[in-house]
Amino acid sequence: MQINENFKDLGENYLFTAVAKKVAAFQQERPEVKIIKLGIGDVTQPLCPAVVSAMEGAVREMGEAATFHGYGPEQGYPFLRAAIARYYASHGVEIDPDEVYVGDGAKSDIGNILDLFGPDNAVLMPDPVYPVYADTNVMAGRRVIYANACEENGFLPLPEKDEQADIIYICSPNNPTGAAYDAGGLKLWVDYALERDAVIIYDAAYESFIRSGGLPRSIFEIPGARSCALEFCSLSKKAGFTGTRCGYTVIPKELSRGGMSLGKMWVRRQTTKFNGVAYVVQRGAEAVFTPEGERQTAAAIDVYRGNAKVITDALTELGVWYTGGENSPYVWLKCPDGLDSWGFFDRLLREAGVVGTPGVGFGRNGEGFFRLTAFGSPAATAEAVERLKKLLGK
Amino acid sequence: MQINENFKDLGENYLFTAVAKKVAAFQQERPEVKIIKLGIGDVTQPLCPAVVSAMEGAVREMGEAATFHGYGPEQGYPFLRAAIARYYASHGVEIDPDEVYVGDGAKSDIGNILDLFGPDNAVLMPDPVYPVYADTNVMAGRRVIYANACEENGFLPLPEKDEQADIIYICSPNNPTGAAYDAGGLKLWVDYALERDAVIIYDAAYESFIRSGGLPRSIFEIPGARSCALEFCSLSKKAGFTGTRCGYTVIPKELSRGGMSLGKMWVRRQTTKFNGVAYVVQRGAEAVFTPEGERQTAAAIDVYRGNAKVITDALTELGVWYTGGENSPYVWLKCPDGLDSWGFFDRLLREAGVVGTPGVGFGRNGEGFFRLTAFGSPAATAEAVERLKKLLGK
Repeated sequence: MQINENFKDLGENYLFTAVAKKVAAFQQERPEVKIIKLGIGDVTQPLCPAVVSAMEGAVREMGEAATFHGYGPEQGYPFLRAAIARYYASHGVEIDPDEVYVGDGAKSDIGNILDLFGPDNAVLMPDPVYPVYADTNVMAGRRVIYANACEENGFLPLPEKDEQADIIYICSPNNPTGAAYDAGGLKLWVDYALERDAVIIYDAAYESFIRSGGLPRSIFEIPGARSCALEFCSLSKKAGFTGTRCGYTVIPKELSRGGMSLGKMWVRRQTTKFNGVAYVVQRGAEAVFTPEGERQTAAAIDVYRGNAKVITDALTELGVWYTGGENSPYVWLKCPDGLDSWGFFDRLLREAGVVGTPGVGFGRNGEGFFRLTAFGSPAATAEAVERLKKLLGK
Repeated sequence: MQINENFKDLGENYLFTAVAKKVAAFQQERPEVKIIKLGIGDVTQPLCPAVVSAMEGAVREMGEAATFHGYGPEQGYPFLRAAIARYYASHGVEIDPDEVYVGDGAKSDIGNILDLFGPDNAVLMPDPVYPVYADTNVMAGRRVIYANACEENGFLPLPEKDEQADIIYICSPNNPTGAAYDAGGLKLWVDYALERDAVIIYDAAYESFIRSGGLPRSIFEIPGARSCALEFCSLSKKAGFTGTRCGYTVIPKELSRGGMSLGKMWVRRQTTKFNGVAYVVQRGAEAVFTPEGERQTAAAIDVYRGNAKVITDALTELGVWYTGGENSPYVWLKCPDGLDSWGFFDRLLREAGVVGTPGVGFGRNGEGFFRLTAFGSPAATAEAVERLKKLLGK
């Protein structure tokens, strides 16, 4: 019996555990402090009424033999695939419903898609980075190369000519930095992938936060992307589905490598190792894309965007360098007073009772940076920002 | 860019497509025939009232900020893990809630668990077999060996001393044959696995159909199993969750290979490539294990068991050899009159308007056998059996 020895190469993911331990220790030491957490990447606004109503209706259907649904198609119900294709069309991207694959979240699909690729590919991703991009590849024994994301390039690295890469990860708007590529930047990556016969794993989980004109919401807005990119998206942030689990993957029909259609390989993977998303959840997801659902979910995103503005306005006032926040729920700031990531974490926690995430937890290049999220309640966010101003106010 | 070349070794899974094509062609030729389908493995009874009510309540919770649930634990909510542990205890198996991992179905978990094992293991499974056991291993480039399941051993093969195997698949009660191991048979497999340091992938998806005393509902009823077995189960058949998606995997704490705890490896796999099951679904699953839920779901299973008895009584009357049906929703019969699997399929379809599944579709040893399922409605099943009797009546 041979285990997968690659698991031994996985670093323990201490980041959020370490944060939680420090917070618990401080709270025990100073029980009177009302700690505010702006560290988590989880939503707080409830499911919108249109989704709740659709899910209630679907639960009732499941309770009657005449309207009960057993196994659904592994790729998702046609009603949801069509709704997602219409959503793309609404921001100018033409995709066929058959190119949309419904799954239980972008994290699952981004991990599982790697089943389609051999172990000897070189994998390129930015540093700092969402840790699961690296971990899923380490599990399969692949070599990971990092592109430098840093203050100088606005945490938006561009391809370097001499670097070989077969699988390229792009998350835009980015987690953890909140930075978002414009069309020009994405075009350089698409051209680079096409030259090398590489594929781009494009994580669009935060696309619904984009409001600025000229920032693509989909890699498929870029000419050539249909021949090199797979796009992963989710309702987690768009519609508060972190605890409801529904995402989707778009694989263009013409996308193939080694003579194999990647869409057909994904169907084979999913029909073999997956059984589709719950009918009730898919009906809820469908409701997100109705005019009513779009209006209600946009209102929830506006709450988070308002929080982000409160945070970034304060940073501007304080003269602290940051990126993100405008088209993203994440604000990535440079630790003031030359502190390193954990140094600022400790100071912010102990002197202001506010919790954020040390940037170094996302990679070496994150050292000296810090992530705040806009997913808290407006009241808690405003209070946290007041404390921050008091802490750093000159 | 190197694709996963192992995908080229996957046979197309033509079985259910071929069945569907033949049925469609016949229906077009003879539109007046009311075809009855006893081929599918999907449930038809709706979710029980206890589950519907729990899910409705959970949907309402998700619609209010105060009771909203975002990301849940990847391993499942403690309330559900505890409920499943109590269910095991109710049939005499002591497991810790921390050994229960909630997932979106046994098919997903049985596929994904293979991430824990290296590519060079020898994999042993019966023939005939549920096709995804083989396909998931072929995708990873593993060698598959088949154990002969046949009429002589009641389609319950026992280990052969000289056969090497590192990963052993057992499904009991079995899909497709409906045959179920007794404790003695399972003990031989456990001892065999322990001798070889192998692991058993035990698929208990049909355990809720067991009513006969002496037939284990869990591999963990067998001494030694905690050191060699992982058990996969699902609410799909127990509670009609095929379209609601919830299953669970039990990995004993002491189960390790190559110095690594398999439970800890699974946590690492799931926290990296999975984000848990929807809160609403987990509340529904919890309700299955309440006294009310147990009573209501048992009533649905009794409907299917009644169908199975109608089928097996007819086969007994007709003198047709079969196995399964008593502790399983599947009846596996020997094709009458020396017909091969597809020959009997055609005759049953064309002369009786009844659809079943050709045994050869599940492996070479299935040739000459045929699967009927008890998941239809009682009226349709009774009508199908009348037609079968008329067709084969002496």
